[in-house]
Amino acid sequence: MSLFRLDASIRVEGSHSREIADIVENEWRAAHPDDPIVRRHIGVDVLPPTAWADAAWARYVAPEKQSPAQRAAVALAGGLLDELVGADALLFAVPLYNYGVSQHFKTWVDTVLADTRMAAGAPPLLAGKPAVLVTVRGGGYGPGTPRAGWDHATPWMRRILADVWQLDLEVVETELTLVGVDPNLDRFKELAGEMRTRAEELARQHGRALPR
Amino acid sequence: MSLFRLDASIRVEGSHSREIADIVENEWRAAHPDDPIVRRHIGVDVLPPTAWADAAWARYVAPEKQSPAQRAAVALAGGLLDELVGADALLFAVPLYNYGVSQHFKTWVDTVLADTRMAAGAPPLLAGKPAVLVTVRGGGYGPGTPRAGWDHATPWMRRILADVWQLDLEVVETELTLVGVDPNLDRFKELAGEMRTRAEELARQHGRALPR
Repeated sequence: MSLFRLDASIRVEGSHSREIADIVENEWRAAHPDDPIVRRHIGVDVLPPTAWADAAWARYVAPEKQSPAQRAAVALAGGLLDELVGADALLFAVPLYNYGVSQHFKTWVDTVLADTRMAAGAPPLLAGKPAVLVTVRGGGYGPGTPRAGWDHATPWMRRILADVWQLDLEVVETELTLVGVDPNLDRFKELAGEMRTRAEELARQHGRALPR
Repeated sequence: MSLFRLDASIRVEGSHSREIADIVENEWRAAHPDDPIVRRHIGVDVLPPTAWADAAWARYVAPEKQSPAQRAAVALAGGLLDELVGADALLFAVPLYNYGVSQHFKTWVDTVLADTRMAAGAPPLLAGKPAVLVTVRGGGYGPGTPRAGWDHATPWMRRILADVWQLDLEVVETELTLVGVDPNLDRFKELAGEMRTRAEELARQHGRALPR
C-alpha cells in the first residue's frame, strides 16, 4: 500500500491545510507503519510554468524531433502521473488563494493532463482510486455571508478530481482560518472553532476509510 | 492615452483569444495611431512561480532585511501593477484551459495582488478603469449541454476584475473554437460560426467604446 500526498500551501509553518492533511496522513500511517508516502510540495518546490505547454505541444512532434525542453516536460508530466497511478490512495491539501485555485495546483493539474495517457478518450486511468481533498479558506464564504459564492476553487477541484479523473473523492473543508490573524474576524471565533473541529473529525474519518 | 494588453494563450499562432483581442486593439489603435501599447504575453513569457509567495512574505520583512529573491519579487509585483495603473484602458485575452483558469493568468493576478497597494483596505487603485476581457473556450458549455457549468474560469475572472479591482469591465466570449480540429464537434459548425460573428461584433463595439 502507498499514499501520494500533495501540498499546495505556500506556507511551511502555520499551514492549516497541512495540519488537517496531517490528520488524514496519520490515520493512514497508523494502519501502514512501514509503507511509502510519496510527497509533492508544489507551493514550495514549484513546477516549471512552461512544462504544460512544452508537454502539450510535444504530442504533435515525433519523439526524435522533440526539443530538450519538450523531452524534459514530457518526462515530468509522465512522472507526475506515475505518482498518482502508483499510489493506492491520494491526499491533496490545497488552500483557497485570492478567491481562486492555487496557481501551483492548476499548474500541476495542467501538467498531469498533458500526458498522452490522460488525453480525451483514453481509458480512465485513475477511476475509482480513493482520494481525500483537504481545502481551507481564510475568510467566511457561508450561505448568506457577503462572500457566499466567492470560493471559485473548490468547484473546479471537484470537477477535475471527481468528474474528469473519476477519483472516489471525499472533501474536507474548513474556513475562517484567519480568525486570530485578522481582527475583523474576531466575532467568528466560535464558528471557526466549530468548523475546525468538524473538519478534523472528518479528516480522521476519511483517513481511516482509506484502503488498508 | 495608453493601452495595456495581456495575452494568456500558450499559442502564438492560431490563438482565437489573440485574434478577437486583435479586433479590440485595432479599434483602439484606429483612434490612437501614435499612442503606446504595453504588452504582457504571460502564456509564453511566463512569470516566475515563486514571485507571488516571495512578494507576499516580503510584507513582513523590513526592506533592508529582505532576501534578493524577495526584493526581485516585490519589484516585479510593483512593475506589473504599475502597468495597470499607468494605462487608460486594459485588454485581457485569456482562454479557458482544462475547465479552469489559465495557470499563467492566476499567477499574474496573485503577483499583482501581492503589491502592498492592493492590500485589503487600501484605496481602490483601479476602480472604474475601462477594461475588456476576451475569453474563449474550445468546447461547448451552453445551457442544456453536457458541460454546462464546466467553465470555472470566467466567474473567477469577473470576480477579480469587476468585483475586487472594480474595473469597468466588458466581457467578450466565444466557444466551440475546436470546431474544425475535433471531428466530434463538426455538427456545431454553424453555431460556432454564429458565436464567433457575435463575439467579433462585440469586440469591435467594446474596442470603439474604450476611452478616446
